[in-house]
Amino acid sequence: MLNVVIIGIGNVGTHLSRVLQKSEEVNIIQYFNRSPIEEKELGKRIGSNETKKFTCDWRALKEADIYLLAVRDDVIEPTIKALPFQHKIVAHTSGSVRLSGNVHQKNAVFYPLQTFSKERLVNFKEIPICLETSDKKVYLQLEKMALSISKKVFNINSLQRRQLHLSAVFVCNFVNHFYFIGNELCKNNHIDPSILEALIKETASKITELSPYEAQTGPALRGDKKTLNKHLQMLEEQPQFEALYKLISNSIETTYS
Amino acid sequence: MLNVVIIGIGNVGTHLSRVLQKSEEVNIIQYFNRSPIEEKELGKRIGSNETKKFTCDWRALKEADIYLLAVRDDVIEPTIKALPFQHKIVAHTSGSVRLSGNVHQKNAVFYPLQTFSKERLVNFKEIPICLETSDKKVYLQLEKMALSISKKVFNINSLQRRQLHLSAVFVCNFVNHFYFIGNELCKNNHIDPSILEALIKETASKITELSPYEAQTGPALRGDKKTLNKHLQMLEEQPQFEALYKLISNSIETTYS
Repeated sequence: MLNVVIIGIGNVGTHLSRVLQKSEEVNIIQYFNRSPIEEKELGKRIGSNETKKFTCDWRALKEADIYLLAVRDDVIEPTIKALPFQHKIVAHTSGSVRLSGNVHQKNAVFYPLQTFSKERLVNFKEIPICLETSDKKVYLQLEKMALSISKKVFNINSLQRRQLHLSAVFVCNFVNHFYFIGNELCKNNHIDPSILEALIKETASKITELSPYEAQTGPALRGDKKTLNKHLQMLEEQPQFEALYKLISNSIETTYS
Repeated sequence: MLNVVIIGIGNVGTHLSRVLQKSEEVNIIQYFNRSPIEEKELGKRIGSNETKKFTCDWRALKEADIYLLAVRDDVIEPTIKALPFQHKIVAHTSGSVRLSGNVHQKNAVFYPLQTFSKERLVNFKEIPICLETSDKKVYLQLEKMALSISKKVFNINSLQRRQLHLSAVFVCNFVNHFYFIGNELCKNNHIDPSILEALIKETASKITELSPYEAQTGPALRGDKKTLNKHLQMLEEQPQFEALYKLISNSIETTYS
């Protein structure tokens, strides 16, 4: 069993806490968060049996095999530096921060490639976990932990990971913004936005069978100027959406020209 | 039983042909396509038992209750005009063309809100079908046909439909383009793009529980300038993607400011 301390009980920390509690390879010995969290709220987040393992007192931090850092990007290095124990596996969970060069710890990355919302449970078994470390033994321990919660574990270096994170911004954050725009257009015209759900799900499912390049459809792909102009006209009073429509249609046309 | 002729055996026509063959309310008496389709290819598209019902000879067009037009937007009106029978239900399947004003026919719209690819079967039961017609009796007949293949049938007028079609461009066509960009970024860095699949599916599933407004995550939402700048720098040599990154991040920031 690996003794683990989870540092940071925000969004990612909450989801990792929940799933690692069920892991047969991991014993979570402590939860740390910089600011206190009310017991009831903490119970809701990570499961009530575990709340007594919580501390927000850095001096009370326990010695463990692995420190899992689910903190903001800019706090990662200061947190590693402040750790009161040495030669420990310290794994951060960020997509865009490179492997630490801290000489006192066994630096690692444990990056789950997923979008987390506090309110929604996810199926960890399907979530790719991207591991990085320069030490082979450390890798095997992280892999053990990762495989105990997910079927998909990858060795991904810092350069690849930041590209993955950038990809994720496109296929998740930007995509969700377009779901928002679609919903707005519906609501503005007294249409229940849930009418879009089947289309959204099919668009996402399609790419397991067809590459996105092959799966592309729509007026920009067809070079259907009449529809493109009609749409731009409809968006005239929403310049923010109009500019997006124009630029993305151009990007699709460029891709297929 | 409604006697139906399907005009246009392209993408949408193929899918409608397949599903309407199984409908208990519909008898497809003929398939028409302007250009000939080889029997083997036609069999693959619509199911081989039905190929003998095919014609590409306009003069051989049969008399039916409903003519379902799955043709290009700009061919809809000329096709309606050329129909050799009068006072028939003539329903087009386009999202962006308004209800015809042709005085010789019972004009209607039968618009399935979905993305169709020839290679991929879809579950019609979940696909919203948007109906429009100015005649109540005609509506009931179309509704019968629609409910025989889908659970989700809506009365949507021309104004709403073109807004829906515009929404669909955002949540389907543009979203798919972002899947393409995500895949490209992976491939350029020797990462198997299938690693993105779980994220893509969760992003799409999330919105049945959370509104896209609530579901938004990422650096633009957090106002995380450091990550935003890092990403823009990474895209410096792909100005097409860089411009998209900038504009969409701005749009997210504007939405939440």
